[in-house]
Amino acid sequence: MKRLPLIAALALTLALAAPLAAQDAAPATPDSVVATASAEEWIAINPEDVLIMELSPAADGSGRYVVIQLLPPPFSQPWVDNIRTLARAHWWDGTSVYRVVDNWVAQWGGGDPDFGMDPGPMPTGVVMPQAAYENDSRTLAVAAGLNAMEGAVEQLLRRMTGQAAAERPSQVHMRDAYAERTLFISGWPIAASDSEALAWPIHCYGHVGVARETSNTGTGSELYAVIGHAPRQLDRNIAVVGRVIEGIEHLATLPRGTGEAGVYETRAEDTPIVAARLASEHPDGATFRYQYLDTASETFARYVAVRANRNDAFYTVPAGGVDICNVQVPVRLVTD
Amino acid sequence: MKRLPLIAALALTLALAAPLAAQDAAPATPDSVVATASAEEWIAINPEDVLIMELSPAADGSGRYVVIQLLPPPFSQPWVDNIRTLARAHWWDGTSVYRVVDNWVAQWGGGDPDFGMDPGPMPTGVVMPQAAYENDSRTLAVAAGLNAMEGAVEQLLRRMTGQAAAERPSQVHMRDAYAERTLFISGWPIAASDSEALAWPIHCYGHVGVARETSNTGTGSELYAVIGHAPRQLDRNIAVVGRVIEGIEHLATLPRGTGEAGVYETRAEDTPIVAARLASEHPDGATFRYQYLDTASETFARYVAVRANRNDAFYTVPAGGVDICNVQVPVRLVTD
Repeated sequence: MKRLPLIAALALTLALAAPLAAQDAAPATPDSVVATASAEEWIAINPEDVLIMELSPAADGSGRYVVIQLLPPPFSQPWVDNIRTLARAHWWDGTSVYRVVDNWVAQWGGGDPDFGMDPGPMPTGVVMPQAAYENDSRTLAVAAGLNAMEGAVEQLLRRMTGQAAAERPSQVHMRDAYAERTLFISGWPIAASDSEALAWPIHCYGHVGVARETSNTGTGSELYAVIGHAPRQLDRNIAVVGRVIEGIEHLATLPRGTGEAGVYETRAEDTPIVAARLASEHPDGATFRYQYLDTASETFARYVAVRANRNDAFYTVPAGGVDICNVQVPVRLVTD
Repeated sequence: MKRLPLIAALALTLALAAPLAAQDAAPATPDSVVATASAEEWIAINPEDVLIMELSPAADGSGRYVVIQLLPPPFSQPWVDNIRTLARAHWWDGTSVYRVVDNWVAQWGGGDPDFGMDPGPMPTGVVMPQAAYENDSRTLAVAAGLNAMEGAVEQLLRRMTGQAAAERPSQVHMRDAYAERTLFISGWPIAASDSEALAWPIHCYGHVGVARETSNTGTGSELYAVIGHAPRQLDRNIAVVGRVIEGIEHLATLPRGTGEAGVYETRAEDTPIVAARLASEHPDGATFRYQYLDTASETFARYVAVRANRNDAFYTVPAGGVDICNVQVPVRLVTD
């Protein structure tokens, strides 16, 4: 199936009308900052952390691939392990995207007889993890080499203390309604509570979580991706397991379900899942190689700072702050 | 053209799997709180503030109506006035949705030769307003009967000072990365800076703004709606003029543009706009009557409080706070 080139956020200018002409010495933009990153600041994503979900072809015959990066340790690992086991068992092949709610989620998978699907018993090794959605932030800080749970710009400013002020990025704040603090660890947006000494992964646009009912946990056999404003109230209540790094539009453009809770009224409305494979096992795995920008790098800190202080030709009033879900970690496809 | 019933956020339960069974004396949810509102707490939306945009029919022949509520005074009124003038001149009829960017905006209208469109000169009365995107917050507070720029829950707590603690809603915070303070005025989410004595309307999912280039303003002949995570960095940089109160899914599900800045590469990919009319002038205007929940009402304060403190059967850990863009103001279609 023909695969269209990656439409990365970085490939599109964000101007609201005609794109601006390139200018020498123009004020920095998020794109222009990322373009300055050195090769060493890009980190390869392990093919074991990449889940490639192929949907049935679009009406015009083009392929629809949704590529998910799985969360690294120590976050949500019991579910991430389940997801790898389910992918190796080809468990999702033949299941479908069966629920789409505008400004909320697209949901897929199977195993829930409520939705008329029964793809059989779970593969060996898939367990029902306990509902434990938080990590010890002190241990995390030590592992990440952080001075407690400080953020990207704070880290950079600390390292640059001896440098001239003009070379340092602007101070930014990331005030957050859902947590005392937000920051980036190992390429991921993370929320933390200093008073509770806890940290946890969060729900942003394109992030993937483990669907569940009221039992407080699930296996990961049914997953959802966020297709609207970040539903942060779900943080700490449900397992975040990854994020869509390519093809979120194939989920976000699906018709919204008109049945209860946004489930399609008939299975004929579902979008079939042809196959879901780890990149490490995918026949075309070599074409699904990605890198993310090191969130402990100087370039990433500058990227955060410019996201919080837009002052290029399009912007007049910089905010001085930025919502963590508006700081998408740059990810790029590796094309030799 | 057949019009599908309103799919309101309130009509869908937000559980991530099967909906919960109704329970007596169950913990409050946003829906259950709104259901307790008295008739007096619902405020009719003036038909002069409702813009009905009819897109070409969907592939299955069903109608696609996108209904926009325009901002009330004193916010963005020069552009809102232009929009009414343009609608009365039938100016958008035959223009199109020509740009769709995932997690960003869908944009429509005409008049920009960069996109190959020339619907003719502007109607008489359409002016190019100055780029003035903020209001005096002291004047606003007086007009709204507020004790400075306090929020819905703060107002309610003040009024309920003499009541028993159990009857008061939980305290909530709405910490915000883009403004010192966020609150609701006249049914709209508003950001404010006490130190600057300014307040301004904001960009949330479904909100509509005036597309522009680098000239810092536009007429309103080209508009966009947000179809992703709130791009709050646009606040104070561009005119917010309204919000989609019905049919946002008809924009959010459109194919993403693959041309520069997400503009469709050919005009054949555009979605035509059949007509755009104020409800006051629409032949079926009587079927487009809406009400919003008074944001100065006790029920609205309780709604904010429960959005910030979810503790129904699905939620285990309440956040204690809420992002203003996750507090959608309840809007309902009036059906006699």
